[in-house]
Amino acid sequence: MDITRPVLLLDKKKCLNNMKKMVRKAEQKDLIFRPHFKTHQSRDISLWFKDLDVSRITVSSVAMAQYFAEAGWNDITIAFPVNLRELNEINQLAKTISLNILISHPGSENELEKKITTPIGVFLEIDTGYHRSGMKIRDIEIIEKMILKLTAMELIDFKGFLTHAGHNYQAATVGQILKNHNRSCEILRNLKSKFSRQYPALILSIGDTPGCSLANDFSAIDEIRLGNFVFYDVMQLALGSCSIKDIALALACPVVSINKTDKKIVIYGGAIHLSKESIRYRNQEIFGLVVKLGEMGWQTPYEDTYVTSLSQEHGTISASNKLLNEIRNGDLLGILPVHSCLTANLMGSYIDLQGNHVDHFKT
Amino acid sequence: MDITRPVLLLDKKKCLNNMKKMVRKAEQKDLIFRPHFKTHQSRDISLWFKDLDVSRITVSSVAMAQYFAEAGWNDITIAFPVNLRELNEINQLAKTISLNILISHPGSENELEKKITTPIGVFLEIDTGYHRSGMKIRDIEIIEKMILKLTAMELIDFKGFLTHAGHNYQAATVGQILKNHNRSCEILRNLKSKFSRQYPALILSIGDTPGCSLANDFSAIDEIRLGNFVFYDVMQLALGSCSIKDIALALACPVVSINKTDKKIVIYGGAIHLSKESIRYRNQEIFGLVVKLGEMGWQTPYEDTYVTSLSQEHGTISASNKLLNEIRNGDLLGILPVHSCLTANLMGSYIDLQGNHVDHFKT
Repeated sequence: MDITRPVLLLDKKKCLNNMKKMVRKAEQKDLIFRPHFKTHQSRDISLWFKDLDVSRITVSSVAMAQYFAEAGWNDITIAFPVNLRELNEINQLAKTISLNILISHPGSENELEKKITTPIGVFLEIDTGYHRSGMKIRDIEIIEKMILKLTAMELIDFKGFLTHAGHNYQAATVGQILKNHNRSCEILRNLKSKFSRQYPALILSIGDTPGCSLANDFSAIDEIRLGNFVFYDVMQLALGSCSIKDIALALACPVVSINKTDKKIVIYGGAIHLSKESIRYRNQEIFGLVVKLGEMGWQTPYEDTYVTSLSQEHGTISASNKLLNEIRNGDLLGILPVHSCLTANLMGSYIDLQGNHVDHFKT
Repeated sequence: MDITRPVLLLDKKKCLNNMKKMVRKAEQKDLIFRPHFKTHQSRDISLWFKDLDVSRITVSSVAMAQYFAEAGWNDITIAFPVNLRELNEINQLAKTISLNILISHPGSENELEKKITTPIGVFLEIDTGYHRSGMKIRDIEIIEKMILKLTAMELIDFKGFLTHAGHNYQAATVGQILKNHNRSCEILRNLKSKFSRQYPALILSIGDTPGCSLANDFSAIDEIRLGNFVFYDVMQLALGSCSIKDIALALACPVVSINKTDKKIVIYGGAIHLSKESIRYRNQEIFGLVVKLGEMGWQTPYEDTYVTSLSQEHGTISASNKLLNEIRNGDLLGILPVHSCLTANLMGSYIDLQGNHVDHFKT
């Protein structure tokens, strides 16, 4: 490959392994597998899921739902609080595919009643500890009232309860992630017990990559919606939800300057390629791990070597003597991203290790 | 305007005011004005600069240089350590326009000597305290050797010394910014004294928005290259380099969920729209200020109201009671971005207050 500018490399084998592993886990645990496509946002990668008999997906915007509906997906949940400004687009889409939307707090029901013109599924979001959005279990009367309102609407099919345990991204240990996961499952299980007599078809849907990667107990849960697992990244590595060999993306970056005195390497690859997402890793704030690139992909990261700052196009690597001694201006280095969803979104396409282009949705 | 999804609003009047003010300042201080176009990355906005008789520009990548050369700009400095993998593109471009490149550390000279086939200008980058890249003044023999090597090359025109005082973005006070600025000017002035007898045409070029916005003393400096001033943002506001009324961009975001108990508002507008850049502001880490949008643009930000977290498409606002009482699902809110360069890059286009589309470079 003749790489002159930052390019996002995709190790298809690692990616397929991640996908297959999770498909298998869902089968074993008897869970509906509805992977979140916001991470890859790719028609090409969506076809790899089709090959694994996945038929239901999750997205995080109406635009993404439209994109994947055009690509042939016909059972989509938009796991994002319903945007009342897009009800026309939602009605349009629900005419052609099986579509689920999300209500996170009271305030949208009246508009939905007035403006929804096509049968549609609705999940209620439950806050199981992340506190970004979703109704709280202590507000059970509000939840109950909401269900009554929804089920009274002719075109609305109340699907069940959905949560995203995003607080797992703040967990300090794997034990904490499992504790959060179990607590989320317990909260949803209690809701099911309470409402399943009236609504026997209701389902429980959970969605985060750390919890779904690490947990083995999914009792009462019906559906998993994780997305990041398809690539994983340094954040997942730091959390313990994957190992270094599972990370399927690396940004190939030209080395443009070497400052031996300060032990720094400047790469062409900055915030507009990797995103400004950083993470505490081995006692420092980093924006990526650094790998050597070869024909067959990449190796394990250089020791004591981290991307320690990013500006718009510049990345600065604090480098080990080993790396400083072997590197030259014009060489390429690979950066394992801290947050693969944001890096993929910024780069807008991938190249696999055979040099094939892999597409990414563009707004 | 019928806004259904996040849209980046551009207040053209504010933008033009920022541009005119800086053009005037450069004239008054007898400085070459070579604005950095990495902030707006827009052909349309570049024409507004042309109307103000600006003829020289700065960019941060070869791709951006190609884009603006096609738009008619013929005097461009790529203020980024020269990427040896793009020497073909650089040679090609230097055939048609007056092009300057940058060397930040030893290590690229031999390749340049072998592969540069067209006359080209070269600046040496000096580190005046940012420590991202650039040669240090204490390494004066290295600088001297580099100049001798460069001036011995037939096709290379040694243009002078360039710095980016990026450490101003870490400054706690305006006084610190001015101190940094004066120190940068002093370092460059000393270099000029030392080398101007041999190279009388050498110029000194500085580039950051905080220093150039706040300083009045530019003695010995020949050129300013700031970029962010065209829009400013919350980061510049926090540093003291602009006032709230100078910020020319706001991301219009639909309100999708209101959590009155926790005093939080969820908007459709997240890390893929605003970027994950945050800043310490009034004792908290924030991702943007929140404004009310009207036909004529936006007002001053809501008090005690901040974007306090971002995920991929979600933005979470910690809201005042005032805002909570007046807001409804489906309303629009404006977010003043922390870092306008990154927000503009993510959004990929602007809409002015009259509803006209303003373009942005897309890679």
